[in-house]
Amino acid sequence: MSDSVGCLYGLGVGPGDPELITVKALRILRSTDVIAYPASENNQKSLARAIASEYIKPEQIEIPLYFPFKLDRSSEPYYQKAATTLAEYLDRGDNVVVLCEGDPFFYGSFMYIYNLLMNRYPIEVVPGVSSMMAAAACLGSPLTYRNDTCVVVSAILPAEVLKSKLAVADAAVIIKLGKNFTKVVAVLKELGLCDRAKYIEKATTQEQKIIAIASVNPTKVPYFATIVVPSESKFK
Amino acid sequence: MSDSVGCLYGLGVGPGDPELITVKALRILRSTDVIAYPASENNQKSLARAIASEYIKPEQIEIPLYFPFKLDRSSEPYYQKAATTLAEYLDRGDNVVVLCEGDPFFYGSFMYIYNLLMNRYPIEVVPGVSSMMAAAACLGSPLTYRNDTCVVVSAILPAEVLKSKLAVADAAVIIKLGKNFTKVVAVLKELGLCDRAKYIEKATTQEQKIIAIASVNPTKVPYFATIVVPSESKFK
Repeated sequence: MSDSVGCLYGLGVGPGDPELITVKALRILRSTDVIAYPASENNQKSLARAIASEYIKPEQIEIPLYFPFKLDRSSEPYYQKAATTLAEYLDRGDNVVVLCEGDPFFYGSFMYIYNLLMNRYPIEVVPGVSSMMAAAACLGSPLTYRNDTCVVVSAILPAEVLKSKLAVADAAVIIKLGKNFTKVVAVLKELGLCDRAKYIEKATTQEQKIIAIASVNPTKVPYFATIVVPSESKFK
Repeated sequence: MSDSVGCLYGLGVGPGDPELITVKALRILRSTDVIAYPASENNQKSLARAIASEYIKPEQIEIPLYFPFKLDRSSEPYYQKAATTLAEYLDRGDNVVVLCEGDPFFYGSFMYIYNLLMNRYPIEVVPGVSSMMAAAACLGSPLTYRNDTCVVVSAILPAEVLKSKLAVADAAVIIKLGKNFTKVVAVLKELGLCDRAKYIEKATTQEQKIIAIASVNPTKVPYFATIVVPSESKFK
């Protein structure tokens, strides 16, 4: 019997290459008995678990947390359920790790769990390498210089909204491309940014693809595809 | 005599905590003989070296690269000189690491060296944990949800420019605060963002400080201080 509750860790496992996990996240992952991760409700796949798989030992308890792909009010009960599951372990005094793709607080589903449990348990968040930095590195595209403004947008936004957000950017990263590729490219053309734009899928994973914008097949763009518009600034 | 040139590695060493280096960057750092890093021309201090210091062995060759703090046309010769120094090792066939605070391609001085050497030598960039993700983690502030727009700006920009950039943000990160704290806070108040804003200095280092915005002494704000304005979005 434990006198005190366990600690919840949100661990950034990085963008895809297992070696891009931090030394700190790896230490905590290896020394914690209970390992949770977001998994798709449909196919039960977990990208976060796949990234960390070589570090997980058979004796560790694994808890897939099923979240629907769509995120709106209807998905709230799934996060409530996940929080309740984790709370059972934490109440027992077990420490629990939640594996997070990229960084836990940058477009991560862990944030909803964090908000539900932050007042009840000690939580430590270990930041990770974000896919936006990984994309720039893999593309060989220095992203932001000096006093540049960097704008990160979701491709899901309507064209006019995207245009207004990207208009203030020296450098931009457009995430969650999927079916929105054609719309995004049209916006970039309108803004005169298309010549600088570079496309990458699944940066740092074994499935990574870099394709010239003009050669991308818009019907085959995955959700984890990104367009990077690096800044032009150099010395000035 | 080596037949071929060496490889240049730009290694992100993370935001400050030595444990926030990636497993990959640490492996390359430990297996490379020549270690370079940006250092201040005035006091010769190198934050990147300080972060990695426990991993550097006495037998490794160290090359401080002196850059002026001010970055404009007048600083170009310093980068040219640094590139020439690194090229001497690379031409000999030595691999060379350049240690980079945070991520190499996100407001990093390595980018200038990259641009000077990219057509002459093989270069691999290893992305790192950025101070922006580290700041959000240390503040316990989930940054961006779902389809949020995130804007990263330098506090050095004029107030009106800052205002126009931040106006499109759901979440914002204001870097390089230094003497610009009062100006930035005035802009955040105008935009109604000040209540959400959080202040942190030197995130994840032993000198980390988190101070309520109203309690910050504007005359003592360091360059490596950041204001994070987390998104309000949750389920909607």
